Amino acid sequence: MTANKKAIVAGGGLVGALWAIFMAKRGYDVEVFEQRSDMRIAGYSGGRSINLAMSERGWKAVRKAGIEDKIRKVAIPMYGRMIHSLSGELTFQPYGETGQAIYSVSRGGLNLELLRIADRFENVKFHFDHKCRGVDLDNNIAAFEHIPTGDRIQMQAPLIFGTDGAFSAVRNSMLKRPRFNYSQSFLDYGYKELTIPATDDGRHAMPNLNALHIWPRHNFMLIALPNADGSFTCTLFLPFEGGEDAFDHLNTDDEVMRFFERNFPDAIPLMPTLLEDFHHNPTSALVTVRCTPWEVAGRTLLLGDAAHAIVPFFGQGMNAGFEDCTILDEMADHYGEDWGRILPEFSSSRAADANAIADLALNNFVEMRDLVADPDFLLRKQITAHLHEKYPDQFIPMYTMVSFSHVPYSRALAEGKAQDVLFDRILAIDDIADSWEDNPSVDAIFHAWRKEFPN
Amino acid sequence: MTANKKAIVAGGGLVGALWAIFMAKRGYDVEVFEQRSDMRIAGYSGGRSINLAMSERGWKAVRKAGIEDKIRKVAIPMYGRMIHSLSGELTFQPYGETGQAIYSVSRGGLNLELLRIADRFENVKFHFDHKCRGVDLDNNIAAFEHIPTGDRIQMQAPLIFGTDGAFSAVRNSMLKRPRFNYSQSFLDYGYKELTIPATDDGRHAMPNLNALHIWPRHNFMLIALPNADGSFTCTLFLPFEGGEDAFDHLNTDDEVMRFFERNFPDAIPLMPTLLEDFHHNPTSALVTVRCTPWEVAGRTLLLGDAAHAIVPFFGQGMNAGFEDCTILDEMADHYGEDWGRILPEFSSSRAADANAIADLALNNFVEMRDLVADPDFLLRKQITAHLHEKYPDQFIPMYTMVSFSHVPYSRALAEGKAQDVLFDRILAIDDIADSWEDNPSVDAIFHAWRKEFPN
Repeated sequence: MTANKKAIVAGGGLVGALWAIFMAKRGYDVEVFEQRSDMRIAGYSGGRSINLAMSERGWKAVRKAGIEDKIRKVAIPMYGRMIHSLSGELTFQPYGETGQAIYSVSRGGLNLELLRIADRFENVKFHFDHKCRGVDLDNNIAAFEHIPTGDRIQMQAPLIFGTDGAFSAVRNSMLKRPRFNYSQSFLDYGYKELTIPATDDGRHAMPNLNALHIWPRHNFMLIALPNADGSFTCTLFLPFEGGEDAFDHLNTDDEVMRFFERNFPDAIPLMPTLLEDFHHNPTSALVTVRCTPWEVAGRTLLLGDAAHAIVPFFGQGMNAGFEDCTILDEMADHYGEDWGRILPEFSSSRAADANAIADLALNNFVEMRDLVADPDFLLRKQITAHLHEKYPDQFIPMYTMVSFSHVPYSRALAEGKAQDVLFDRILAIDDIADSWEDNPSVDAIFHAWRKEFPN
Repeated sequence: MTANKKAIVAGGGLVGALWAIFMAKRGYDVEVFEQRSDMRIAGYSGGRSINLAMSERGWKAVRKAGIEDKIRKVAIPMYGRMIHSLSGELTFQPYGETGQAIYSVSRGGLNLELLRIADRFENVKFHFDHKCRGVDLDNNIAAFEHIPTGDRIQMQAPLIFGTDGAFSAVRNSMLKRPRFNYSQSFLDYGYKELTIPATDDGRHAMPNLNALHIWPRHNFMLIALPNADGSFTCTLFLPFEGGEDAFDHLNTDDEVMRFFERNFPDAIPLMPTLLEDFHHNPTSALVTVRCTPWEVAGRTLLLGDAAHAIVPFFGQGMNAGFEDCTILDEMADHYGEDWGRILPEFSSSRAADANAIADLALNNFVEMRDLVADPDFLLRKQITAHLHEKYPDQFIPMYTMVSFSHVPYSRALAEGKAQDVLFDRILAIDDIADSWEDNPSVDAIFHAWRKEFPN
C-alpha cells in the first residue's frame, strides 16, 4: 500500500462507515476516527434518535457496497402511512404502487452492521473514543482528541473525509475560510423519542406494523416506526414554546398525561413507560445545514450530514448521505480516482440536490402534521395515483421520484412545484371530488399542463 | 465599584471602543480586549479597508457618547455621488436635499480617536494583543490569548459584549448551541484597496472632493472617498472569477494596466502607485452574516459586525453598529440597567432591522455599479426629489430614510419596496421623461399608491 492510497475518515457514523467500506474496496488504507466508544462493546445509547426510513437511494448505496443482504435482515417494510385520528380511527395511505415500501431500520442497528462489515477489511482501522478537533486544511492534517485521556493526536493524509455529522468539526475548520458559505437554521420545534414496547410474547403492540404511523395534529404530531424486536420507536414533534401544546408547558406528570389524553388517547395504553421516557429522554432540536463548497483543495471533503443536515420529515437524511457515497464512488470510477478533479466537481454538482432535499424535507413536515388529515390532500393523492397509472411515463408522483428513484432531488423538487400548479387547476374543477375518475377535464388540464411544464 | 458593575468588551474596534465609552459613563468597570496592537503606538495598518461613510445614525451615537466634536474634525462631507463615465465625463447625483451629506471618515482615524477617548476613563482598561478564544457561555468566562507570548487568560464578568467583528470568536462559541441560527454568505466579488495620493502641495488630486466618486461599469466598479490628508481611498469591486474583467485574470502588470485602460482611463494618471498597490494589497472577500439570537442568558451579547456583518454598499456597516449602541443605551436608561431583560429584548427587536440593512446593502451594490449610469434611474431620482419636495410628509426617499433619519431599517426596506411599485407605475406613463413636472397623472398615481401602501 503506497502512502498515496491513504484516507482519513473523520466520523464513523452511518455515512463514515459506509464510505470507509467504499474506500477499502478501492484498496485505500482507511483510518476511521469516531468520538463514540465501540458500540460492539459499549452498546448503542439511544434515547434521542428517530428511526431511519431506508428507501431506494439508500438501498442502491448498500447494494454497490455489496452489503444489501445483511441490511435487509434488520429492515421492516412500511408500505404507507397509517393515520391515527383523534378518535382512534385508522386510515392507510400507500406511499407508492403495490409492493413499494420504505424500510424502517434502527440507526444503532444499521450503524453496528456497517461497523462490523467495515472492520472486516484489513485496510480499515477504527479509532474509537476520538473526537475530531479540526483540520489544518492547508496541510491536510486532522487533529483528534482521545476522550478518556485527553491526549491529542494528529494525522496527515492525502484525503480527508469529514463525515462527522450535523455539528461537524471538519466543517467548523472550513467556516473560518473566506468564501465558505454556511447556514444552520433551527425549527421552533423540538423532538423527543418515546417507545411502544413489544408485547409480552414479543410481538408488535399495533398489528399494522408495515406502516409508518402518524398522529397528525395540525401544528404538531406523533409518529411511530416499527423495529425488528417487536417495539415501535416513537417520536413526538412539538413546538418548544407557545400555548399549552408545547414542550415548555409539559413539565409535570399531570401536564404530560393530560396532553396525551387530549391529543393521542389511543397511544397511551401502548406506552407503559410514557412518563419515564418523557422525563428521561432529551428534547432535541431540528437543524438544517447548508454550505458550499464542501471541499478544500481537492483533498478534504464533507459528506452526509456534515455537508447537508436536513430535518427528518422526508426520511431522506441517511438516504441522501448514502447517495453521496454512490455518486462519489461512481465519479471515482469515471475519473480514475483523480480526486483533485472529483472533489470540486462533486461539491459543485451535488449542492443543488442537497438544497432541494433540505427544502423538500421542510415542506414535508407540513404535509405530515397537517395535510395528511385534509380531505383535499387525500383527493389529490387519489388523483395522483390515477394519473400515474394512466400516464406512467409522463407523470411520476414527486414522492415516488424522491423515495423510489434516483432522479436528482433538484429535479424532484422542480417537478413537485409543477405538480402543485397542476393540482391547483384540477382541484378547482366543480364537483371534482365526485367526478375525477374518467373526467375529460382532468385529462385536458393534464395535457395542457405537461406541455407548459415538460418533464 | 462593585463586582456587579463589571463588563468585558471582547473586541476594541469601532463598536467595541464606542460601547466601552457608553458603559464607562454608566460607571461600569470595563475590560476591553483587542487582538491588534495599540494603534497609538504601532500605528494603523491599512491596505484592506474601505473608507467609512458616517451618516445620521452614526452621528447620533457619537453625539450621545458626547464625542461628536472630535469626530467632526476628521470627517469630510460628501453631498452626493460623482459618476465617472468611460470617457471621463462627470455627473453629480445629490444624496439628499441641499446641505445633506454623508461623511467620509478613515476607519483607522476614527478607531484611534475612539480609543483615545475611551482610554481617558479611569474605569476602562485596554488589553491589546489579546485575541478572544471563545466564551464559556454557561459561566460567562471569556478566554483570551496574549498573542506575543501565547499565554492564555480567562476573565469572568456578569456582562460580556462580543464586538469582535465579522469573524467573531464570541459568536463562534454560540454557534455550537442548539437553536442558534446562523448564516455567512459571500459575494462572488472581491475588493482591493487602492489609493489616489494628495498632490505635491497636499491637496486632493480630484477637485470634487465633497463627493463619493464612482466609476460604475455594470458588473463591477471603482469608488473613491476623500481623506482629510488630501488623498482618496479607492476600492475596486470586481468578480473573483469569470472573464477578463475578474481578479483571477489580473496577475501581471500588463494585465492590470490594460484592465484600467479599458475601464478607468481617467483614474490612471491619479494613481502613481497603482501597480504596487494592486500587487501588494490583498483581495478581500465580502460577507453578509446573519444570526439569532444575539444573546445568551441575558449576560452575553453580540454587537455590530459580530451580530450582523453586511456588505459595504450602503455605507451602513459602522452606522448600524453605532446605532446598536444608541438603542442598547436607551434601553438601559429605560429599564434601569436590568440587563437580564434588556439583552433578550434588544436581540429580538433589533434582528429584523439588521436583516433589513443587510438586504438593502446587497441591493445597493446593483444600484452603484450599474443603475447609477442608467437613464431610467436618473429620471427616477429626479421624480423622487420632486415628490419629496411636493409631499414632504407623505414621501421620504428610501435613501434619505436610511442615511438621514433614525427610522428603523426594516421600515425603510418596506418603504423602498413600496416605492419600487410606485415607480414601476410612474415610469410606465407615456413620454414620462419629458412630462414628469406638473403631470397630473403622476399625482394621481402617487395618491392612489399612498392609499394602497400607507406610510
